[in-house]
Amino acid sequence: METEAPQPRETYQVYPVGYVRRRRSGIDLDILEPFRPALTHLDGFSHVIVLWWFNEFDTEEHRARLHTKPPYAEDRETGVFATRAPHRPNPIALTTCKILEVNEEQGVVRVADIDAYDGTPILDLKAYFPVCDRVQYYYLPRWLSGWPEWMPEEGLGLMEMEEE
Amino acid sequence: METEAPQPRETYQVYPVGYVRRRRSGIDLDILEPFRPALTHLDGFSHVIVLWWFNEFDTEEHRARLHTKPPYAEDRETGVFATRAPHRPNPIALTTCKILEVNEEQGVVRVADIDAYDGTPILDLKAYFPVCDRVQYYYLPRWLSGWPEWMPEEGLGLMEMEEE
Repeated sequence: METEAPQPRETYQVYPVGYVRRRRSGIDLDILEPFRPALTHLDGFSHVIVLWWFNEFDTEEHRARLHTKPPYAEDRETGVFATRAPHRPNPIALTTCKILEVNEEQGVVRVADIDAYDGTPILDLKAYFPVCDRVQYYYLPRWLSGWPEWMPEEGLGLMEMEEE
Repeated sequence: METEAPQPRETYQVYPVGYVRRRRSGIDLDILEPFRPALTHLDGFSHVIVLWWFNEFDTEEHRARLHTKPPYAEDRETGVFATRAPHRPNPIALTTCKILEVNEEQGVVRVADIDAYDGTPILDLKAYFPVCDRVQYYYLPRWLSGWPEWMPEEGLGLMEMEEE
């Protein structure tokens, strides 16, 4: 019988490129100074996909929780890959945001809304390209039928999340 | 004059939950055994967003490159946040894939296509929810006008990437 050497777990490092700031004047993605040049020409796009870190769920316990009863279907136990739940093996969140303004020099992307709290670390921004991200024909499980066909015009915010 | 203690750079750990396998029979997302329960009920969705790791771009040099001349607009130097370029501060890739089949027990999600090579590490899967991901009214920079309004029916593969 062959024995296999134990495999060390492969890991990668990610770090914040900025933080979500919920200001009285609006919601900003504040980009740290060294990363601001990456914003060039983002202002030509209507939307941006924000990858952010589910800060409070970066614990061994949360990251090991693979099933959930989603608040919108409480009788149904489902795998986290079939949800957008914050507890998942890699607690990376994804929100598509409507861009209101980009200021590269100050490192600010003002967005219409985002479902992340003030101070949330941002990992990446990706311009929304319909050819990559916009699915024409889709379907959902029957227990989600009746859900909207489109993102709300202003995007998803904390309210929507809490209502769900 | 006050002096501030040097701030250690905040980092987070991510790790593969599986790997892309380009088989003769088709393209599979092979999910490692411990993470397979997270697949429950993913088969009810038509599409899944795959977050994967730009393996070959996880170097200090690539991660520090914030500008690019995209192959589809070579005269234009643009920030990486306005592109889907593989060199970016956190080399996380995002591809929306059409699901053909999900086998939770074997940990296999067969997809129509993906623009990732065999052996690419997968970080996360997220079911495609139109209410989160499907933007009705969008715009692009003028230099991208004429691009498709929708993702191709089978999604993006390596061919599309190389053609661009």
